[in-house]
Amino acid sequence: MTCELIAVGTELLLGNVANTDAQHLSEQLSGAGVNVLYHTAVGDNPARLTEVIHIAHRRADLLIFTGGLGPTYDDLTKEVVCRAFGRKTVFHPEIVEEIQHYFDTVFRRPMPECNLQQAYLPEGCTIFHNPVGTAPGCAFEADGITVVMLPGVPRECRYLTDHALIPWLREKSGEVITSHELRIFGLTEPQVQEKLGDIMNNAVNPSLAPYAKTGEVLLRLTAKAATTADCEALMAPMLREVQARLGEYLYGIDTGSLEQQVLTLLKARGLTLSAAESCTGGLIAKRITDLPGASAVFLGGVVSYTNGVKAGVLGVAQELLDEYGAVSEPVARAMAQGAQRITGSDLAVSVTGVAGPDKDDRGNDVGTVFVALAAENGTVVQKLDLGTGRHRIRAMTAHHAFDMIRRYLTDLPIRKGE
Amino acid sequence: MTCELIAVGTELLLGNVANTDAQHLSEQLSGAGVNVLYHTAVGDNPARLTEVIHIAHRRADLLIFTGGLGPTYDDLTKEVVCRAFGRKTVFHPEIVEEIQHYFDTVFRRPMPECNLQQAYLPEGCTIFHNPVGTAPGCAFEADGITVVMLPGVPRECRYLTDHALIPWLREKSGEVITSHELRIFGLTEPQVQEKLGDIMNNAVNPSLAPYAKTGEVLLRLTAKAATTADCEALMAPMLREVQARLGEYLYGIDTGSLEQQVLTLLKARGLTLSAAESCTGGLIAKRITDLPGASAVFLGGVVSYTNGVKAGVLGVAQELLDEYGAVSEPVARAMAQGAQRITGSDLAVSVTGVAGPDKDDRGNDVGTVFVALAAENGTVVQKLDLGTGRHRIRAMTAHHAFDMIRRYLTDLPIRKGE
Repeated sequence: MTCELIAVGTELLLGNVANTDAQHLSEQLSGAGVNVLYHTAVGDNPARLTEVIHIAHRRADLLIFTGGLGPTYDDLTKEVVCRAFGRKTVFHPEIVEEIQHYFDTVFRRPMPECNLQQAYLPEGCTIFHNPVGTAPGCAFEADGITVVMLPGVPRECRYLTDHALIPWLREKSGEVITSHELRIFGLTEPQVQEKLGDIMNNAVNPSLAPYAKTGEVLLRLTAKAATTADCEALMAPMLREVQARLGEYLYGIDTGSLEQQVLTLLKARGLTLSAAESCTGGLIAKRITDLPGASAVFLGGVVSYTNGVKAGVLGVAQELLDEYGAVSEPVARAMAQGAQRITGSDLAVSVTGVAGPDKDDRGNDVGTVFVALAAENGTVVQKLDLGTGRHRIRAMTAHHAFDMIRRYLTDLPIRKGE
Repeated sequence: MTCELIAVGTELLLGNVANTDAQHLSEQLSGAGVNVLYHTAVGDNPARLTEVIHIAHRRADLLIFTGGLGPTYDDLTKEVVCRAFGRKTVFHPEIVEEIQHYFDTVFRRPMPECNLQQAYLPEGCTIFHNPVGTAPGCAFEADGITVVMLPGVPRECRYLTDHALIPWLREKSGEVITSHELRIFGLTEPQVQEKLGDIMNNAVNPSLAPYAKTGEVLLRLTAKAATTADCEALMAPMLREVQARLGEYLYGIDTGSLEQQVLTLLKARGLTLSAAESCTGGLIAKRITDLPGASAVFLGGVVSYTNGVKAGVLGVAQELLDEYGAVSEPVARAMAQGAQRITGSDLAVSVTGVAGPDKDDRGNDVGTVFVALAAENGTVVQKLDLGTGRHRIRAMTAHHAFDMIRRYLTDLPIRKGE
């Protein structure tokens, strides 16, 4: 099945918002075996939208519209789409009740008259009821293709995609698609290609495809079959082979981010963590506390952006700072031990480095970073050379810090740097 | 001038990345008076890309391609675009030198042969040199329209948009467009509409348009005229009127984010800052240290995710924690004073609150947050009710913390909460 996504809204063309609906839909549709061939965005203009519909009709079997289902005059998607496919709309009193309920319980104010417009839907459509907003989605067949309309508000679009559209498409296709996400840290995408290129290029069902994230590599392994069990059986041999080839660089299968994996491992071992951050300036703490449940294992940390705080709060000896400078192996070690001591955590991670834009006063290059991990049985320090780019260096430093903890908690070797 | 943006890359259709290039380009082009009518995304497929070019040619005067300018076999934008417009490509040895330089200084590894491909550009084009990557951009006129190609990597696309494409379009138009960014915190977008709706709805040149960011409102004031001075003269009366109506909620004109404004004000006053963070878990420190030059004013901070760290590191009295709980006015106050004392900073900000998903053990609702600011002349505490959503609560708490510092540094009143 080939698909075109059509986003309707002048706010997209003005750059007020990014079209994140298209990304989420594409990800989910690809996972469900739908071949997305085009994304189009067009403004709140009936003539241009009609022309876009005609073009899409010629080149895809599934048209998914997002946006323009609101209650105001510029919400014209339903009207224009129905006219293009010669559909009448039908009033649904039960949708009015849903909208009324949403106003009563969430907005806690009277429902305006104009919202009644949202209760009109194309004749004979499947309704995608919307418990997280006021605009229902819908789907119908016309002229040999399938037409879907979803609200544009990202939260509502995402909800109806995951809970209504994808299950509906799966049921229609009568085929099950299952996938696993493989997460890799410590190898670049070309290095992963080198290790797995023969599999990725030849695999059809199951298929293995990469998608890059900053600093890490993600692969998706996908199979189609009659049942979930059949999908898993198809994937099992390839999964074993990929695991064997990636070894310790494969940090998780369906586990979420590095910090999520660290959180899971710490919980499983009943251990606590703290952090002492210089160049990352709070990013490590921020990333782990982004996760619900972090308070069970993360006690806290210190952002020691100056030598005064390294000495005064973390207790790093002034002699170390004077002799080796703040960006050094001994200071990284003392910072981690200091965080461990003052917070009472089982493990403590520390980072100190030069994020740029300039070298530090000891002549350390931008990108020179030390990461240390203090644990029960001692402290290990890793030296990194992360190249340039302030944001990149900070993000990669946090990745390496989490990977170091992950390696410690899974008894893998930690590279010591130079 | 009407415009279509065409993004090339299968990774967009698989949902691996969002098309943020389209957002940034749209925002900048709108500001430069270009009317963006369509966004299209298509995969790395020559036949479909060619068809997309023919459609775009019929409906826009300016076609901007992003992506597919890399050195590998699936980077086919240049080849397909040149074929569609009957252009040869020409080899540019000076581009090879630039790419070589980029490999020497940034990647620090030999340049692969395949990168030579990036030195071929359409005959007679204007070259947009790329100092932040290896793919140059370019522009040429053909068949009565203007064709532009930019790299797809967001950082590179953004750089070339701002530093090459927009200046080039402005020079071509022979008209000067000048704009100012007005940044507002503490009012919702409807509240801003209420205060300024009459101006926004009627203003043509200069124009005043909002674009929302999470938690704050940004307005762009834009004028077109023969010279920059004429633009400024056109804008001056409206700017005065808007300033008068927004008052203390207008935190900056062309100043960057709240944290950037705080950094600027602290530098100007020669004051230092520290932070004690509970529910934001390092986000405040992270946001200010995202900015180059933060080390001149930000000494560091403590992420006190547990009562043990609040007491042991920040010196919050155990009696306060026992009597009032961690999420309370007295504890917020003591946290700020503790950070100020242990770091020796002039100012210290603290936050403690319930980010969710659950209420805290004292029954405080999700979204209850205390923000405190300790300064030379005392400590002030503000109570906030930020509603639901973990990420939103954390982001809004950081906004409020920075706004509180901004208000203190500009002698504005700080709302005390209940």
